[in-house]
Amino acid sequence: MLSTTARTRLGREKHRGSSDRNDLYEVLDTGLFCHLGVVVDGHPMVVPTGYGRIGETLYLHGSTGARSLRAGSDGEVCVTVTHVDGIVLARSIFNHSVNYRSAIIYGRARLVTDEEEQLAALRALSEQLAPGQWDYVRRPTRKELAATAVLALSLEEASVKMRRGAPNDDEADYALPVWAGVLPIVTKWGEPQPDPALSEGIDIPVHISRRE
Amino acid sequence: MLSTTARTRLGREKHRGSSDRNDLYEVLDTGLFCHLGVVVDGHPMVVPTGYGRIGETLYLHGSTGARSLRAGSDGEVCVTVTHVDGIVLARSIFNHSVNYRSAIIYGRARLVTDEEEQLAALRALSEQLAPGQWDYVRRPTRKELAATAVLALSLEEASVKMRRGAPNDDEADYALPVWAGVLPIVTKWGEPQPDPALSEGIDIPVHISRRE
Repeated sequence: MLSTTARTRLGREKHRGSSDRNDLYEVLDTGLFCHLGVVVDGHPMVVPTGYGRIGETLYLHGSTGARSLRAGSDGEVCVTVTHVDGIVLARSIFNHSVNYRSAIIYGRARLVTDEEEQLAALRALSEQLAPGQWDYVRRPTRKELAATAVLALSLEEASVKMRRGAPNDDEADYALPVWAGVLPIVTKWGEPQPDPALSEGIDIPVHISRRE
Repeated sequence: MLSTTARTRLGREKHRGSSDRNDLYEVLDTGLFCHLGVVVDGHPMVVPTGYGRIGETLYLHGSTGARSLRAGSDGEVCVTVTHVDGIVLARSIFNHSVNYRSAIIYGRARLVTDEEEQLAALRALSEQLAPGQWDYVRRPTRKELAATAVLALSLEEASVKMRRGAPNDDEADYALPVWAGVLPIVTKWGEPQPDPALSEGIDIPVHISRRE
């Protein structure tokens, strides 16, 4: 069960909330990137960035010089992962909506200093974005590790919201001669594009060509 | 030209920045939703939400009761729109990356109180998410308008970043027997799903069935 705090309690649309941890994991594990929110000089700053999960911990990474990472390692953060699955076309403008699944995690991030945890986190981040590559390409050197800041964020304070299915129209509007339904958004992998500098005779590995 | 401020000046990867306003418009106009960052009780809060653009103004909307909208109408906001176009598969973990286009807008939002501006903003929001619907379905009533808060944010303080193309590997890594390239992410519209409650004899309009 997800705990409820003042921040994760849904103020509106309570029926769209989920308190099932498995829903949280599903939203996180099927995402490619998140939006990281930090406060810099009292102002909000929201940047897209990668993430990875190990159990109850979410990991973020970036250059040790990145403002967002510096702010995130020294204060509260908010991490949001959003999947938009379709546009809900209702019979009125007001009832238009979006089918989505989103997770919001609040907390104070911890800068990872243990080398073993840093490596495990980077592996999780890598597997989230490009599964199979950790065991296939050159791993990080000590110098590269030193240039990479990794933040750990507990999944303790999290909320999940989702909307699925057909429009919810006002009773009177169902009589309108208007088409209503959902226009799904489908995200797929395209055809892999080889690096123009690729040496001849290197086949594409199946973890890339057959990625699901 | 986009102005440069302390917040929009790129600290890193300056070559990925664009100061062309047309790039900003292109990122915004081809997006479906943004992530809105606000500060609530000193903490960052990031929520996915719709938006629309009219000239140099970005509009956001939501229930008058939504925490994020209340915070956004009484303080600084950050709006981020991100397109992820592909996964950049390099010859080392460290050089893995993402091809993306993102826009970040900072500023103090203004609560729209003028009825004409509110309607124009809602129309822009509607056209961004579901073009053609404003002229097709039932428009908002006065009661619905009263329940909808609209925020206006100037595009004055904005930055655009993008990455395109093949991996940038370390010189020595090009000799590795590793496939490298880009795995594109393709987003398409699926087959429209009619509302089960749809009356018989209502054809799907072309602005939905042929949406690009």
